[in-house]
Amino acid sequence: MILALDIGGTNTALGLLDATPALQHEHSLPTRAEEGADRLVERCLGWADGLGVPRPSVVAVGAPNADARSGWIISPPNLPWPDLDLAGLIRTRCPGATVVVYNDASAAAWGEATHGAGRGLSDFIQLTLGTGLGGGLICDGRLLLGARGFAGEVGHLLIHPGGRACGCGRNGCLERYVSAGGLRQTALELGIPEPFSARSLEEAALAGNGPAREAYRLTGETLGLALAELAALLDPAAFVISGGLAAAGELLLGPARATLEERILPVMRNRIELRTSALSGARAALLGLAELGLEAGRAGR
Amino acid sequence: MILALDIGGTNTALGLLDATPALQHEHSLPTRAEEGADRLVERCLGWADGLGVPRPSVVAVGAPNADARSGWIISPPNLPWPDLDLAGLIRTRCPGATVVVYNDASAAAWGEATHGAGRGLSDFIQLTLGTGLGGGLICDGRLLLGARGFAGEVGHLLIHPGGRACGCGRNGCLERYVSAGGLRQTALELGIPEPFSARSLEEAALAGNGPAREAYRLTGETLGLALAELAALLDPAAFVISGGLAAAGELLLGPARATLEERILPVMRNRIELRTSALSGARAALLGLAELGLEAGRAGR
Repeated sequence: MILALDIGGTNTALGLLDATPALQHEHSLPTRAEEGADRLVERCLGWADGLGVPRPSVVAVGAPNADARSGWIISPPNLPWPDLDLAGLIRTRCPGATVVVYNDASAAAWGEATHGAGRGLSDFIQLTLGTGLGGGLICDGRLLLGARGFAGEVGHLLIHPGGRACGCGRNGCLERYVSAGGLRQTALELGIPEPFSARSLEEAALAGNGPAREAYRLTGETLGLALAELAALLDPAAFVISGGLAAAGELLLGPARATLEERILPVMRNRIELRTSALSGARAALLGLAELGLEAGRAGR
Repeated sequence: MILALDIGGTNTALGLLDATPALQHEHSLPTRAEEGADRLVERCLGWADGLGVPRPSVVAVGAPNADARSGWIISPPNLPWPDLDLAGLIRTRCPGATVVVYNDASAAAWGEATHGAGRGLSDFIQLTLGTGLGGGLICDGRLLLGARGFAGEVGHLLIHPGGRACGCGRNGCLERYVSAGGLRQTALELGIPEPFSARSLEEAALAGNGPAREAYRLTGETLGLALAELAALLDPAAFVISGGLAAAGELLLGPARATLEERILPVMRNRIELRTSALSGARAALLGLAELGLEAGRAGR
C-alpha cells in the first residue's frame, strides 16, 4: 500500500492507494499547522493505521516549497514552519518505508500526466487555477524538477511588473491575476458590487452581464500572455488547465487562446492545444504522489 | 569520425571530430543560402572529403528552427529556405551514416554542458549574447527539447511588451535589448553619437563614460529581469552566459545580478550562480553536436 499526503495551508488530503495505483481510501484533515509538522504526520499515520490495512511501504508527500532532491521543505508559504527535513521526519516514524517528498504543484502535474488530461503527452505544462496558481512542467515524458525541486513556479511569472502585491513579496505575479482571488480583484476593480462569489460571477457572465464577462476576458487575456511566454521557453504540445477557474471554460479559455495565438512565436502558432481537466486538484496530487513513490520504490530509493 | 555543421544565416561552421569527441579539423564557409540547402550540404561534405579521412559515420547539424524530433527545419529565420527535411537530405548523400539535426542554440548549450562552463551542472540555463540571443535549457542532466525541439527560445521572452520591433514579428522580445544589436540601440537612444562599435562602447564604459556605462547598466538590468523569470520557472543551479557581450563581464553582469536578486522569488535568492564561458559559440555548437550525434549513434538511431 501507498500512503499519499498532500499538505496544504488549511487542509491535508490523504489517500491510501494500491499498487495500480488506485485510490482505496481518501480523506481530508485540517492541517492545524500551528501544532507542528510532527503532530500532523502523526495524525496522518493514525488515519492510515485506523483503516486496518498493513503499514504502507511507500509514503509520498506533497507540500509547498518541498525540495524533492533533499526531502526538506523550505520557507513553506501558508505554513508557519521552519525549514525542516520532512522526509527524515517521516522515515523515523515509518522504518523501512520508501519516503518521497515533492512540491505539491509538481505532484499534481504528474497526476495529470499519468491519470488525467495529460495522458499520452510527453511535453505539456499543467496549470491549476485555484486559490492560487500552481504549475508543473512535463518535458520529454518526465517531471521537470530543477536544481532543488522548485521548478514550475508559473504563478510567480512577473506578468504585470509593478502590479498587484503578491504574498511572495513581489508585485505583478501571474497568480494575483489568474486565480480565484485574482478574478475577484479584477471584478472589484471593474466596479462589480459585493457581495459576489466565483459561482455568481460565472453565472452573471454566462447570462451576458457586461462587467462580469469583462472580468473573465481580462483574466483570460493575462493567462494567454503567460501561455505565450511559456510556449517560447518550453515548446509544449499542450497546456492542461485544471482547478476551479477552469470550470468557467470558454469564458476564460476563449480570450486566453486568442491572446496566446496573437502573442506566440509564429513558428509555434496554432500548434498548441488547450485542454481542461476534470481531475480534482487533490486527486491529481494523490495519484501523482503515488506514482512518484512507486517509481522511487522500484528504484530502491 | 563525426562531421558537425552549424548553419548560420551568413556563415556555416564545420568541424571534423574524433570519437572523444575532440575537434581534429575546423573550418568556416559562407552559407550562401540563396544557392539552396542542397548546394550547402554538398560544399560541406566536399570539405570533409578533401581532408583525406574516411567518410564520417555521424553527421550532426545545427540550424535555426530545427526540429530535432523530425529532422526538418521550419521557417528558419535568416535563411530564405522553405520548410525542408534537412536530415533526409543529408541521409541521401551519406548512406549508412547516423544523421541528427538540432536547433543551433540547443546544440551550443549542450556543448557548454559537456565541454564548457556547464560541466558538472545538471540544471542550468545557457544564454549566448551575440548578434541575437540564443538559449538552451539543461534540466536534470538532459537537453530540454520540447514537443518539436524548439524549446529554449529565451531571446523571445516578451520582456518589454509593446517595445522594440523584433524579427519574429512581435514587439519587446528580450533579444532586441540584450544582444549586440540591442546594446547598440540602447546606446543610440541614450544619445551616444555614431560611429561606435561594441568594442569602443565597452572601452568607453570601462574608462568611466557615463552614457556608455548607462547603456550596459540598462542592458544588464533587462537581462536580470529575464533571469528572474527563468529562475521561477526552471529553478536552475546556474546561468551560463557566453557570446560577445559576455566579454564585458561585470559591466553587464553586475547590474544583471543585482536585478536578478532583487526580482527573484525569495526562496531562490542568492542561490543561483552566474557563470561566463570562454568557449566560442561555434566551438560550443560543434562539440555539442558531436556529443548529440555520438549519443544517437550509440543508441542505433
